Amino acid sequence: MKVTLNRTEFMQELQTVQRAISSKTTIPILTGVKLVLTDKGLTLTGSNADISIETFLSVEKEKVQMKIEQTGAIILQARFFSEIIRRLPDNTVTLEVIENNQVAITSGKANFTVNGLDADSYPHLPVVESQDRIEVPAHILNKIVNETVFAVSQHESRPILTGVHFVLENKKLLAVATDSHRLSQRVIPLESGEANFNIVIPGKSLTELSRSLTDEEEAIQISIMDNQVLFQTNTMKFYSRLLEGTYPDTNRLIPSSFNTEIEFSVPELLSAIERASLLSHEGRNNIVRLSINEDSVILYGNSPEIGKVEEDLSYEQVSGEPLEISFNPDYMKAALRAFGDTNITIRFISAIRPFTLEPTESQGSFIQLITPVRTN
Amino acid sequence: MKVTLNRTEFMQELQTVQRAISSKTTIPILTGVKLVLTDKGLTLTGSNADISIETFLSVEKEKVQMKIEQTGAIILQARFFSEIIRRLPDNTVTLEVIENNQVAITSGKANFTVNGLDADSYPHLPVVESQDRIEVPAHILNKIVNETVFAVSQHESRPILTGVHFVLENKKLLAVATDSHRLSQRVIPLESGEANFNIVIPGKSLTELSRSLTDEEEAIQISIMDNQVLFQTNTMKFYSRLLEGTYPDTNRLIPSSFNTEIEFSVPELLSAIERASLLSHEGRNNIVRLSINEDSVILYGNSPEIGKVEEDLSYEQVSGEPLEISFNPDYMKAALRAFGDTNITIRFISAIRPFTLEPTESQGSFIQLITPVRTN
Repeated sequence: MKVTLNRTEFMQELQTVQRAISSKTTIPILTGVKLVLTDKGLTLTGSNADISIETFLSVEKEKVQMKIEQTGAIILQARFFSEIIRRLPDNTVTLEVIENNQVAITSGKANFTVNGLDADSYPHLPVVESQDRIEVPAHILNKIVNETVFAVSQHESRPILTGVHFVLENKKLLAVATDSHRLSQRVIPLESGEANFNIVIPGKSLTELSRSLTDEEEAIQISIMDNQVLFQTNTMKFYSRLLEGTYPDTNRLIPSSFNTEIEFSVPELLSAIERASLLSHEGRNNIVRLSINEDSVILYGNSPEIGKVEEDLSYEQVSGEPLEISFNPDYMKAALRAFGDTNITIRFISAIRPFTLEPTESQGSFIQLITPVRTN
Repeated sequence: MKVTLNRTEFMQELQTVQRAISSKTTIPILTGVKLVLTDKGLTLTGSNADISIETFLSVEKEKVQMKIEQTGAIILQARFFSEIIRRLPDNTVTLEVIENNQVAITSGKANFTVNGLDADSYPHLPVVESQDRIEVPAHILNKIVNETVFAVSQHESRPILTGVHFVLENKKLLAVATDSHRLSQRVIPLESGEANFNIVIPGKSLTELSRSLTDEEEAIQISIMDNQVLFQTNTMKFYSRLLEGTYPDTNRLIPSSFNTEIEFSVPELLSAIERASLLSHEGRNNIVRLSINEDSVILYGNSPEIGKVEEDLSYEQVSGEPLEISFNPDYMKAALRAFGDTNITIRFISAIRPFTLEPTESQGSFIQLITPVRTN
């Protein structure tokens, strides 16, 4: 293998595949990036047990200035290799596999010789057989991920809850995540043809996917395989394993009646919650208390050692029965951040039943649920 | 004590004194910030064992919008207090000491009540008696600190070497730091009247001082006390303890003859050293090797596991005897960064003797020294 190409363009692709590469992996070969050079261009692959990313630099892409002298393949230690590429002096770099899987890296007057591994020893990526693929714009996919992924469980005690449940049915895509203390559910209509699916994607995979989708305008092809999902852009293939098992029925968790209803501006409520949580974080229970009455809504935070806070909240409107309810402010903060700058309506049944949060204008497309904390 | 003032202006002063406050201190009262309100304005004080910072917000400063209702004093837990101030909803904040050293903090509709401590329990700051003070512009002080402080020792085995040695004599200020592997020495002329001194200031104090001096144009008054130095601006007093003991005579360390001389552009040499150190960092010894010949200068880095690098260096001019010398690239990187974007001349005696680095145009005002590593 011998190729000369633009260093900046190459660096970009290296950074993309590095998202899948962990230096902590127990499989040493997965600390490497695989390079495969054909006469069409250069393919880069990075992988860990859960995610694999493959990108392609075409010889036809003008900016890449690719000059192929001999096709071939090699695996290089990813972290070092990209540090070296990043610091090279010239705009172009030449990579040449010499003897014993050693690679000569040349740029300007700098000459590196680094040890690589035989490319044949790299694990194979899943083969996509599915004909059913759907297409979603990157900005929609990013939105639905960011509105749900924060609510997945961080604990492995119920592994299925560490993923986001995606259901495509009747041209509607539903995404829901819950860690059993709070829940976030988003539904969007989708021009999906006849394709349907019901899968659970690990939260960590979705977070990395979202970071990798830089072009908001691009259309992402989604294909489902046996135990894998593939997200594909023009230049990148992003594979994630799926979580096995049955996701709990979350529909029955969402209450349909309520006794108290209040509307807030999200930024104002979020600031007040952040202030109150300064003190609750120091307390043993990390809870804040909300007191709703006909003519005042007050938020309380308390830490025996540091002090206390009370704030008369601004709200848009309130109706129904008076209520005193306590909850973890961190769940509330995460929920509010997912809504962004809008108005939401919070609906309560009682101090011990989960309450719902919805954008006032949402008409059921986005709903969140938080379980309160019993204080007596 | 009761005062209302502009939140942003107050926050700025809080952040300044917080530089001196460590949450890790073994003296609990030093996790606090002391507030003293007189009819002239509000004084804030933060301190740890080494540094104390005092700032003053004058009632006459228009932007502060200070309204004093009752003078007094209190100590508040610094980290929490500043988090609270930062997150308050309104542009102004009211602080009022109520009973039992509790403080009511009010801003907009938010009401905090936090526990404070009696201001009398705060340690006293040193009293300045010295009539001898010198004046240095902030940008000169910052420059001289940044050009030397990186070379102080990080180890407590010889405490005196953790400081920078400042000598004012014959209207010249000399600053020198060494950790016994490398040395950096700067001399500047100073209009200092008759004042002379010879002190050692802890490196950590100087780093914090440099961060606190935001106004490059300001003149800093320097006063020396028994075992303290005071740096004073219009609004801030920055105290540091001095290191006790005799600083070693560093003058005799700087060689006056040499056998090989080479001139480099700093940015070009720095880039090459950074590349070579990528590999040397992985080796057992962290050294790079420089080979100087009449017609080529080559830098080598090597790590048995990862690979090796060699680079034909660009240089301005070379003269004298050929030389092979090995050194720690981290010392070289720090030295080069202190020089900035200029040309330097490096002068060598032999492979086992310390070599000097000087800006080509410096005429003795700035010199650095690095001890090579013996490789056989």
